[in-house]
Amino acid sequence: MNSAFKPYYAVIFTSIQTETTAGYAEMAQQMEDVAKEQKGFIGIDSARNEIGITVSYWESLDAIQQWKQHTDHLVAQQKGIKNWYAYYNVKICKVEREYSFKERF
Amino acid sequence: MNSAFKPYYAVIFTSIQTETTAGYAEMAQQMEDVAKEQKGFIGIDSARNEIGITVSYWESLDAIQQWKQHTDHLVAQQKGIKNWYAYYNVKICKVEREYSFKERF
Repeated sequence: MNSAFKPYYAVIFTSIQTETTAGYAEMAQQMEDVAKEQKGFIGIDSARNEIGITVSYWESLDAIQQWKQHTDHLVAQQKGIKNWYAYYNVKICKVEREYSFKERF
Repeated sequence: MNSAFKPYYAVIFTSIQTETTAGYAEMAQQMEDVAKEQKGFIGIDSARNEIGITVSYWESLDAIQQWKQHTDHLVAQQKGIKNWYAYYNVKICKVEREYSFKERF
C-alpha cells in the first residue's frame, strides 16, 4: 500500500448469456478496442465460465460516463439487450486500496 | 438506480496461476464456503480463463479485514503464494452505484 495511492474507478460488469452467441465475440473484441482508445481508460480484465465478469478501470467517473454514452457502445448495449444477455449487472466502484503479489523467478 | 442505495464494498481478486494446480480447486471451494459464513458477506462471483477474476461483496471494510485475517484464509493465502499463483492483485473498492438488466420471459 502506498500513501500516494490515487483512487480510481472500476466498472464491474457481470453477465449471463442467452443461447444466441452469433456476433458476440466480434462485438466484445471491438468494444474492448474502442474502450482502450477512450480518455481516462486504464485497463480491462475479462473471464467467462457460467458467468462472465469484465472489470474495466477508469481515471474518473466522468470517463465512465463518456464511455457509457459513446455511440459505438450504445449500439453494442442495444444489441446486447436484444440478443446476447439474459442478465447483466453493472457496478460503479471507487478503488480505494490495492496490493499485489508476483512470483520471483 | 435508487436514492436509498446503500454503498457496500467489493474485493476484486485477479490472478494468474502457476502450472501447479493440485489441491487448488478444493481449496478455492473451501474458501468460498467459509467466506459465505462470515459476518458481512453479501455474495461472490468467479470466472477463469487466462486470468481468474473473483469478486466478493461485503457490507463493510471491517468485514473485509476480518475475512482477510480469518485463520483458514491465512493458510490458503500462504499456500496460494507458495504453490498456485504466479501473480495476484487485490483491489478494495466501494460500490457507489449499480444497475441491472434481466430478460423478460
